[in-house]
Amino acid sequence: MKAVVNIQLKEGVLDPQGKAVHHALSSLHFDEVKDVRVGKQIILQLDDEDEQKASNRVKEMCEELLANTVIENYEIEIVK
Amino acid sequence: MKAVVNIQLKEGVLDPQGKAVHHALSSLHFDEVKDVRVGKQIILQLDDEDEQKASNRVKEMCEELLANTVIENYEIEIVK
Repeated sequence: MKAVVNIQLKEGVLDPQGKAVHHALSSLHFDEVKDVRVGKQIILQLDDEDEQKASNRVKEMCEELLANTVIENYEIEIVK
Repeated sequence: MKAVVNIQLKEGVLDPQGKAVHHALSSLHFDEVKDVRVGKQIILQLDDEDEQKASNRVKEMCEELLANTVIENYEIEIVK
């Protein structure tokens, strides 16, 4: 079983990496880009068989290690 | 219009950050984790109205700047 965890900075939290990418895209004349946010995507290969249990465990991992819940939001997607 | 770009290292490319996260999860007794890969998720806010055109432009951005196509794969998802 595979779990995909998408982690993004919360709205309102400054994202210097996103700003830098935005600036670089503007320099390359991609003028239609209005905003850029850069986050992380973590893919976990799991041994679990039970989808609900896996989801709960990945939530624990996010809270304890993967995400900084003060400034980041995370989404968990379980893929068979 | 919003574009979500997921960038992951290609299979076979060493991922030290993933290894470090895997090790940290093991230390926290998340023993069901068999492998971890860490990638990037870039969210772009676009001015484009046309989905197909937006998708093509984001592909150009990936090839020119966002992804290192020698070692990374990318996926583009256009969200209304």
